[in-house]
Amino acid sequence: MHEKHHVVVVGGGFGGLQLVNDLKGATVRVTLIDRRNHHLFQPLLYQVATTVLATSEIAWPIRHLYRDRPEVTTVLGEVTAVDTAIKTVSLANGQSASYDTLVLATGATHAYFGHDEWAAVAPGLKTLEDATTIRRRVLLAFEQAEVEDDSARRDALLTFTVIGAGPTGVELAGTIAEMAHKTLPGEFRRIDTRRARVVLVEAGPRILPAFSEDLSAYARKALEKLGVEVHTGTPVTDCTDAGVKIGDRFVPSRTLVWAAGVQASPAAKWLGIEADRAGRALVAEDLTAPGHPDVFVIGDTASVKQEDGKPVPGIAPAAKQQGAFVARVIRARLEGKSVPDVFRYRHQGSLATIGKRAAIIDFGRIKLKGALAWWIWGIAHIYFLIGTRSRFAVAWSWLWTYLSGQHSARLITQKETLRETG
Amino acid sequence: MHEKHHVVVVGGGFGGLQLVNDLKGATVRVTLIDRRNHHLFQPLLYQVATTVLATSEIAWPIRHLYRDRPEVTTVLGEVTAVDTAIKTVSLANGQSASYDTLVLATGATHAYFGHDEWAAVAPGLKTLEDATTIRRRVLLAFEQAEVEDDSARRDALLTFTVIGAGPTGVELAGTIAEMAHKTLPGEFRRIDTRRARVVLVEAGPRILPAFSEDLSAYARKALEKLGVEVHTGTPVTDCTDAGVKIGDRFVPSRTLVWAAGVQASPAAKWLGIEADRAGRALVAEDLTAPGHPDVFVIGDTASVKQEDGKPVPGIAPAAKQQGAFVARVIRARLEGKSVPDVFRYRHQGSLATIGKRAAIIDFGRIKLKGALAWWIWGIAHIYFLIGTRSRFAVAWSWLWTYLSGQHSARLITQKETLRETG
Repeated sequence: MHEKHHVVVVGGGFGGLQLVNDLKGATVRVTLIDRRNHHLFQPLLYQVATTVLATSEIAWPIRHLYRDRPEVTTVLGEVTAVDTAIKTVSLANGQSASYDTLVLATGATHAYFGHDEWAAVAPGLKTLEDATTIRRRVLLAFEQAEVEDDSARRDALLTFTVIGAGPTGVELAGTIAEMAHKTLPGEFRRIDTRRARVVLVEAGPRILPAFSEDLSAYARKALEKLGVEVHTGTPVTDCTDAGVKIGDRFVPSRTLVWAAGVQASPAAKWLGIEADRAGRALVAEDLTAPGHPDVFVIGDTASVKQEDGKPVPGIAPAAKQQGAFVARVIRARLEGKSVPDVFRYRHQGSLATIGKRAAIIDFGRIKLKGALAWWIWGIAHIYFLIGTRSRFAVAWSWLWTYLSGQHSARLITQKETLRETG
Repeated sequence: MHEKHHVVVVGGGFGGLQLVNDLKGATVRVTLIDRRNHHLFQPLLYQVATTVLATSEIAWPIRHLYRDRPEVTTVLGEVTAVDTAIKTVSLANGQSASYDTLVLATGATHAYFGHDEWAAVAPGLKTLEDATTIRRRVLLAFEQAEVEDDSARRDALLTFTVIGAGPTGVELAGTIAEMAHKTLPGEFRRIDTRRARVVLVEAGPRILPAFSEDLSAYARKALEKLGVEVHTGTPVTDCTDAGVKIGDRFVPSRTLVWAAGVQASPAAKWLGIEADRAGRALVAEDLTAPGHPDVFVIGDTASVKQEDGKPVPGIAPAAKQQGAFVARVIRARLEGKSVPDVFRYRHQGSLATIGKRAAIIDFGRIKLKGALAWWIWGIAHIYFLIGTRSRFAVAWSWLWTYLSGQHSARLITQKETLRETG
């Protein structure tokens, strides 16, 4: 029996899932490999880190999504190598999978610009564990401040620093400030949580550089209105468990969150192809790996240029468009039709939220800010949440938070022990 | 200024919270110390372990519950010692708190009957971390079975053993069987999850010994209908990562859950008073520690007899009644009124659920089983959930599971690596 063309997809993020979705009905077998059992809706991960949403509201088991697609096999496993000569990927458990077409959609993690020692004191935000780690540290800082007798140490505990002012950094800083000013007051007896400092540090000249200057300026004002101190134009030069050095100035701060650099997955290394400084594979215009027409690299782990020479941004819509493009290429090749040979990115707009009833949207010609933008942001995110239940669950959690001002997932979990306040 | 009478409560479980609730309006200051920041609704913890509910649906920040009670101070901290001579409790961070009245409501953990080495392979279920650990192991076992080529190893991966057939053990076994038979089929390509074995082991002669014999027999039948193998009358003699030994017979089983023995917190040791075999403090009839009229011990860490000589069961309603009793005693003492001197436990009934539309209720004279009991069980649990939002959230999650058969929190989280299937 002639086996159907076998597409192996590594990574169940936005790009990988879009690809598998769009291969529905094609004459292929699909194997989808991910080292996690769940797809993660990363744009809302900051809300888990800041106690608004529960972990299960933004993550769904991948295999459940394809229960009605018998030609799709989901494998929980970690890819360790690719052998393009024999067209095989190797897994950490010693098994391997042969492919006819391979799609690497393995994403990126945070990068510390050569300072990996900062990772322990300034966790980034890429996984559910990262989110619960940050949640635990933020909540513990308030708890420890409540029992701290020394005023300098108390101030350091009540200073929260977010490094990097892209959308994630802005959203984290805004939500931590809202917690301190609106959710927590009245619950502590010795500290006034409204006196907490939230510091947002950006090495570049302005926050949210992907947005126009006036939207960026509006966002800065909205953050400052929430009580966030915004520092731009000066890089962080050190991170310790006592605080952060911004340029030459040391700011005592016990809770640091890293929302700066990005490091791609080792997809380029597996293939032995060139990568950019962030490790992203330099792919051809049709998203194939140079010299490997049967291997595609998409999403955050690929370096792709737009027509104007600017890089395609590392955001969910870009990954989805790439997944859809590769599905069209695979279908065209199998059906002997004319194969699209250049991926074109269509930027649909940029969205970022700053706090309750403040957001910015940049659709190019149309720019929105304030309450209307905030409602559009919320509706768009609920719309894009996979799975009917999560849509309702998140809508309900947000409605609850909106009306009551309360957050529903204020849990300190996992076994990191109370850090001594000495 | 004369300071108000200071009540220090250690433990924010059912007993501790009932006590603090019932001290509302009394002329006291209250300090509530817990080593976790959240109250946990333990009766539903098994639903987190079996992916039905999210962690935040059954846990709430303690200090949020008392935000409108300025005389109540919540402290996140771990008590390490009590000095009854100077009326002080010591915390792990080096601080201490002086009390006029002390209430120890520090609960219990699981016990392995002298086999603490079993803890690593057969986790118990007392905390949110325990629940997510069991959830991860159950989900990973199915994932590993899907990629396992050896049939004996695959069978061991698809065998789930629950040790101890009290309500928690029965509820865990029933829900794991439901997952295997109703939630997961169709999502795996190589294994048939309906062929999974769920084994429930009870050393005593029958399951659910707190219930009448006919209800216990009904529960056994309902479990067997769900596909659970019930073994009674034989103790577990060994637990390893390869399986469980029931009497002399070894059952290969890669996932074990411990729902047997209980070990009280060290409250009796702190006070230097007598304890029973499970470590529970032997208290006087008014729940004071013998020789320490200002120290009360309540809930799972206290050993209290009913009028008929039977022990008061370690369940939430008993802890709540004790908390309410001690609040009455403290109030009466402060107001110079006649002080109640004997705690009397009123058993309101026992409830256990076996699976969808099957539960048993033992109200003494009235006994219920089947679908009606199941609905009463569900309504009673939603009613007792603290906090309006959680009531709705849990009701919604249950409705979703009831109608769709799907579970909403099927997440493998935390960093235990994939266990090798070798």
